[in-house]
Amino acid sequence: MNEASVNLEEAGISEGIAEVIVTTRSDAGKPHAAPIGIITGINEEEIKYFVKLYKGSRTLANVLETNTLAANVTDDVVVFVKAAFEKLNENYFTSFAEMPVLKEANAWIVFTTALTVESSEYFRFQLTSTAVKVNRKEVKAINRGRNAMIEATILATRFEITKDEQGREEMRKEMERYADIVKKCGGRREKEAMRILQKKCPFR
Amino acid sequence: MNEASVNLEEAGISEGIAEVIVTTRSDAGKPHAAPIGIITGINEEEIKYFVKLYKGSRTLANVLETNTLAANVTDDVVVFVKAAFEKLNENYFTSFAEMPVLKEANAWIVFTTALTVESSEYFRFQLTSTAVKVNRKEVKAINRGRNAMIEATILATRFEITKDEQGREEMRKEMERYADIVKKCGGRREKEAMRILQKKCPFR
Repeated sequence: MNEASVNLEEAGISEGIAEVIVTTRSDAGKPHAAPIGIITGINEEEIKYFVKLYKGSRTLANVLETNTLAANVTDDVVVFVKAAFEKLNENYFTSFAEMPVLKEANAWIVFTTALTVESSEYFRFQLTSTAVKVNRKEVKAINRGRNAMIEATILATRFEITKDEQGREEMRKEMERYADIVKKCGGRREKEAMRILQKKCPFR
Repeated sequence: MNEASVNLEEAGISEGIAEVIVTTRSDAGKPHAAPIGIITGINEEEIKYFVKLYKGSRTLANVLETNTLAANVTDDVVVFVKAAFEKLNENYFTSFAEMPVLKEANAWIVFTTALTVESSEYFRFQLTSTAVKVNRKEVKAINRGRNAMIEATILATRFEITKDEQGREEMRKEMERYADIVKKCGGRREKEAMRILQKKCPFR
């Protein structure tokens, strides 16, 4: 059986781009976490998984050393913000299939990576799952505050590398809109995530 | 025990505003479905649930007749769009605790309603859960396309009632952004939902 065709939907990775926390380790064993999208491509009944890793990122450096990464499925927006803007400390991690993973994630998928494309900005890898664990299943209604926090986090990472003032001004307005949605629709976790984000990336 | 304090988190209704499909029936028994937010208020350890129902809506008319509504927890964006812009046909419904509910929902919560506020635009009701059923638990990664479809659906309902051209122009731009996210990050279900939305509310 071709490992690449294992369907990971049961573990939360479905069609399109699944936003997860990717954990990796350096050759020396140091863990790292970053929010990254896992791309699911389906054609002729075959399912393939990919990831784009940007040059200069710690995740890419680790993957080039170890040919391995783990996808941590979670909808905890605090973890998304922290993984995007600070180093997660050791307490967040545990070990699964010899890889560092996030203790609180709902599912873990360990992949081996095969380089398929190298562009000027990123490397693209095809992913083959080698170990899967579902820790927790739940039912959860859609929350617009949760969604807005994810968009706000992505926007903030772009704000930091945007230089022109007009672009920044538009981003500030967009961020205000997300902050309003979090305030109106989010729970305590979303509001805490927004506070952390506004401290890390003050949008001034 | 005060029914109003039953914690519905296990059934997917958590802090902030939970976006669900509210199903109701008329006195004569005719089912109706609409996307609506269930508001969870927490103070001093007490949890209360509320809903705002807008004047002129079929949901409000039914609730005034029957003092009952059901919250259907789902993340199927096709159902959100259809419930917002067309009448769901009978095949979508089944029955739970004498209420029409959506067959495919992950959880059902039946509430009785007590009017607490009447404003010029809406009625606000406090909700007391009388029956709860969890049909399906799962693990699912965050998908930006799913989130963007929800925002696009809300935007489309507003577009229809916005008259000034500048407001409409801004909404068109926002809708384009959502369509791009759905195209890039969504799965087939999100793409189908966007096709339906663009047919129902052409944004011209």
